[in-house]
Amino acid sequence: MSEPAAIMRPDMGTPFGDRLLGSIRATERAGLDALLVTPSADLIYLCGYDAPPFERLTCLVLRPGADPVLLVPELERPRATASPAGERIELAAWRDGDDPYAALAALLPRTARIAVTDTAWAVHLLGFQRAVPGAEWSAGSSVVSSLRVRKDPQELELLSRAARGADEAFRRLCDQRMDGLREEEVAASLDSLLRQFGHDTVEFTIVASGPNGASPHHEPGARPIRAGEGVVLDFGGTVGGYCSDISRTVVVERPPRGFSHVYDVVREAQEAAFQAVRPGVAAEEVDAAAREIIAMAGYADRFVHRTGHGIGLEVHEPPYLVSGNRQALEPGMCFSIEPGIYLEGRFGVRIEDIVTVTETGAQRLNRATRDLETVP
Amino acid sequence: MSEPAAIMRPDMGTPFGDRLLGSIRATERAGLDALLVTPSADLIYLCGYDAPPFERLTCLVLRPGADPVLLVPELERPRATASPAGERIELAAWRDGDDPYAALAALLPRTARIAVTDTAWAVHLLGFQRAVPGAEWSAGSSVVSSLRVRKDPQELELLSRAARGADEAFRRLCDQRMDGLREEEVAASLDSLLRQFGHDTVEFTIVASGPNGASPHHEPGARPIRAGEGVVLDFGGTVGGYCSDISRTVVVERPPRGFSHVYDVVREAQEAAFQAVRPGVAAEEVDAAAREIIAMAGYADRFVHRTGHGIGLEVHEPPYLVSGNRQALEPGMCFSIEPGIYLEGRFGVRIEDIVTVTETGAQRLNRATRDLETVP
Repeated sequence: MSEPAAIMRPDMGTPFGDRLLGSIRATERAGLDALLVTPSADLIYLCGYDAPPFERLTCLVLRPGADPVLLVPELERPRATASPAGERIELAAWRDGDDPYAALAALLPRTARIAVTDTAWAVHLLGFQRAVPGAEWSAGSSVVSSLRVRKDPQELELLSRAARGADEAFRRLCDQRMDGLREEEVAASLDSLLRQFGHDTVEFTIVASGPNGASPHHEPGARPIRAGEGVVLDFGGTVGGYCSDISRTVVVERPPRGFSHVYDVVREAQEAAFQAVRPGVAAEEVDAAAREIIAMAGYADRFVHRTGHGIGLEVHEPPYLVSGNRQALEPGMCFSIEPGIYLEGRFGVRIEDIVTVTETGAQRLNRATRDLETVP
Repeated sequence: MSEPAAIMRPDMGTPFGDRLLGSIRATERAGLDALLVTPSADLIYLCGYDAPPFERLTCLVLRPGADPVLLVPELERPRATASPAGERIELAAWRDGDDPYAALAALLPRTARIAVTDTAWAVHLLGFQRAVPGAEWSAGSSVVSSLRVRKDPQELELLSRAARGADEAFRRLCDQRMDGLREEEVAASLDSLLRQFGHDTVEFTIVASGPNGASPHHEPGARPIRAGEGVVLDFGGTVGGYCSDISRTVVVERPPRGFSHVYDVVREAQEAAFQAVRPGVAAEEVDAAAREIIAMAGYADRFVHRTGHGIGLEVHEPPYLVSGNRQALEPGMCFSIEPGIYLEGRFGVRIEDIVTVTETGAQRLNRATRDLETVP
């Protein structure tokens, strides 16, 4: 292929030129004629344009052998021009009342294999499909994730800072009284602590006390936390656009009956999964390592979710540590390891760290203690 | 059709039973075999389930003549059960490692006409299309919007409270000094004021000073605001889940050259559009009313966006006041009227109110003055 001209300009100290070029090459290697990138983490990653995902179509068009084109609504042209994308990508604009899908189709062959951002809105994909009826469509993550899964040193630094901030928020929370507080009050404390320790945004603060701990994605509510209960904490936000995500399970004053044994099983499963991580290992093997420990303890059907998910600009992104995913781990990948056991009506336990794959094994980005903490 | 059984249960004081039934009837009237609703404002509106939009599939399946089914990831089953949806809708769960699209396809005919939530992720629509390859797909807004566009009294009350909070935030901001402040500092003030006046969340705070005012979706930055400049303010958030969205343009100390005339044109256009609103009028006629005034003043090509958008659970939703939209206005619809004129390199002016269609005309929900305000 001839190298596209526009993205060969000097890099201005940003990684976007390399990423655009890398994604165009990956598009070609995948046998695709085009990659359509709508507002998303992919768009931010590839060209630094943080556009709101709205009903008006914004779409970066990447094609092997051609210059990238960024199609934007006319009223957002100045904003796009002012972004890093404006420095290196040709802009095309459409106006309210025009058909943006027709404008897009003019850039594409009539029969083509085209990938689209995973999180693009269905209404836009339906518009693409009407405008290019002969095309075959697939998910863009197959292309962009091949770049995004390997974090560069700057990305690793931001993920580490986010993890350290979450660790510190947990450490401070353990000094505070929980007995008698409502879940939503503890969630508010976590929100403040995350911001205090360097987070720009807070994305989620799960506080699941007593039997609520058996609901992995529990929404914290008015339930008062009592002594003798377990509390699952799962929280995170962003630092410089990159996500934190940590889970710890604590007990208030003393563990409920049967809790300590379950905690030990989950902790051992989390360690076994961590020890399984090294380059070349299939993602599903890490899941299997945690699952085996939990199954041997008799809780196979109480571990109701995968072992982990990739993390970066998004809190959930490839690679997924799940049965059936044979993707080989590579140095620079970052993901959660978060086995759990959920006993309906009683309690839940989950322990989660973010880890990164090194040349020879793995490193935890989270350093908060995994010993069982007792809070007042 | 036989009425579905599950949603005929007593209503528990919530509107969800009526909305589910209404949407199933609308699905049938549209000649569709199913409506698939993924996490979105549609899902909250129809059944009160506020689920995070993630890569794991959550999907409400509505079919004429059948009970609704809510397909959820196993780990989110407790959360779904605890939501208002759990009271009235049969849950089906899938586990990590299973194929959720196959589980969904089992609920659908092999050849069917199926509508999907507009904001569903493309990766999910691609999954649906693989699992039900004979189906014909369309956008779910054609069904759900037929209900959502007409706001009920409780929704109108929340939209009014949101509008009043935004009005008050603007009024207080006008008492504060702007000369010498950076745009992002004024944006932070707006954020605080919106929260102070009843907002639960703040969604956007556009502060576009001087030449930045010519960028309708300008991102507020470090630019210092100076005396003699115009400043476009466009901000909003939510109250009880319902959105505010107001724009006003002010001047610091004194208007720049040519500003006052442009302001008067925009104000007149905004009033003309408001006067055009009544039941039975086509949405595009309201756009035309504003556009005609601006065109007569010689600024046709400087009004680079539609006149307005519906508002409710989403800040942008149908109906859209745009050329080509012949949809007839109905009592209870709520939308923005926000003409603007944008002069590159100089300034911009936009004036925006939320209005609702009454039996005989229209009412403004925003009451903040549209007289040109001068701030210190």
